[in-house]
Amino acid sequence: MTAPMRVAVQGAPGCFSHAAGQELFSDLELVPCASFRELFEAVRSGRADRGMVPVENALAGAVVENLDLLGRMELPVVAETCLRIEMCLAARPGVLLSDLTAVGSHPVALRQCGDFLAQHPGIRPVVAHDTAGAIQELMAGGTEYDAAIGPALAVQLYGAVLLHRGVEDHRNNFTRFLVIAREEEDTTAEADKASLIFTLSHRPGALHGALGIFAAESLDLTRLESRPIPGRPWEYRFHADVRITGSGDFDRALAELRRMAPEVQLLGRYRAAEVPGP
Amino acid sequence: MTAPMRVAVQGAPGCFSHAAGQELFSDLELVPCASFRELFEAVRSGRADRGMVPVENALAGAVVENLDLLGRMELPVVAETCLRIEMCLAARPGVLLSDLTAVGSHPVALRQCGDFLAQHPGIRPVVAHDTAGAIQELMAGGTEYDAAIGPALAVQLYGAVLLHRGVEDHRNNFTRFLVIAREEEDTTAEADKASLIFTLSHRPGALHGALGIFAAESLDLTRLESRPIPGRPWEYRFHADVRITGSGDFDRALAELRRMAPEVQLLGRYRAAEVPGP
Repeated sequence: MTAPMRVAVQGAPGCFSHAAGQELFSDLELVPCASFRELFEAVRSGRADRGMVPVENALAGAVVENLDLLGRMELPVVAETCLRIEMCLAARPGVLLSDLTAVGSHPVALRQCGDFLAQHPGIRPVVAHDTAGAIQELMAGGTEYDAAIGPALAVQLYGAVLLHRGVEDHRNNFTRFLVIAREEEDTTAEADKASLIFTLSHRPGALHGALGIFAAESLDLTRLESRPIPGRPWEYRFHADVRITGSGDFDRALAELRRMAPEVQLLGRYRAAEVPGP
Repeated sequence: MTAPMRVAVQGAPGCFSHAAGQELFSDLELVPCASFRELFEAVRSGRADRGMVPVENALAGAVVENLDLLGRMELPVVAETCLRIEMCLAARPGVLLSDLTAVGSHPVALRQCGDFLAQHPGIRPVVAHDTAGAIQELMAGGTEYDAAIGPALAVQLYGAVLLHRGVEDHRNNFTRFLVIAREEEDTTAEADKASLIFTLSHRPGALHGALGIFAAESLDLTRLESRPIPGRPWEYRFHADVRITGSGDFDRALAELRRMAPEVQLLGRYRAAEVPGP
């Protein structure tokens, strides 16, 4: 019998990060954290084996705090997963949709359920700290809301009643997670994607030149984000995700990039997530 | 006598957007707005002549809500300005630094004054809606905080007493504003910068190809941001700022980009802001 994987998530048990962790690890021991910084610290200190780091949502865009933490904390990325974000409307047993007066959830979740709320003007949105936490608190009693919006996993975990599944405006909504570990895994052989961070000297065409290195190897750049560098206004740290399959030589591209870029940080190589269908 | 320029800002009078507007317009009539959406609507409806749109902070990065609104609202960008963000600690007359127990400000401002707050553990940070608004409310009385952090302009405007200037951690902090109008200005002759948005077909090397168009004309790309496209997971809308001075032909580059990119939206051409010194 092997020990369960201790997986750090930001949020209460049942949160989307917890659901994303379940996609990857069948035997999982949850390490709930109050903040993303605490999550990174939990992995660095060895209190958790893995950390689920949401880096991008298909509607809201980059989770910039986590891009910055990935650069600063220097913990290797060993896997990726992608979760469809389905919002569930939950209440306490015996409560009907027609009874509801207020619904609690995280502000981003409430915003992503704008159509449902517009169709139900009698249900007042109430801001809560967390999606799964809103369901947890609803079931504990004493909340100012009589329903909550959150993940199906939290509905099940806290014994709430599912009133309506898929209350989100866009069914085509996903969150992409990178999984961090304390040390690199020897998974290079099966890796087909890599994440890296680089800076560039400020001269015309510098970014074009850097991307040209990957283009020359026919390596597909699936994402590029820029983040400011504190103390160096209008200079940027670029976060790139690259598919490293096919005929192109990623190592050669990386070596070439290191010759032109002042700083290059390889976050890790891993197996790319499959995007689940809507 | 000409009429004053009616300038829409998000925030209370005295906010950083107000200060940025004063840099550009000597005779300014403020149109305060509760949200960025309301600001865009004020310009579109003609209730304001100009709108101050913060798009980027040198520490926090892109103001993504405004990037999205610039794309969606289709109002032309006619100018740019750059403001140094200096945080002032203000109190009611007669109150000393040693008296303080709590300080109110916008969460981003409080975060940017982390060192000062760490050095003064007796002063509890309290989240307020707005920096200038915190000073306004402080002076109106009845707040749970006895000091506020905000712009010098608000300190002066509401008659507060400046206890400490420059309480921010990083002196090298700036916010860049784009200025929107209802209609394009005929300022193309003196323009030396342009902002545009484009999408790309998803194939390896597409972004490299697009940037190559500007590189071929020796046009300096000063910034590139990507934003998600709702309903099209992992496809992006790219926001680019380009210097259009020198020998390069921006019109030719734009025509070339239109041939390869499914969507190209020229937000405007304008005179680049000078970055003020720290």
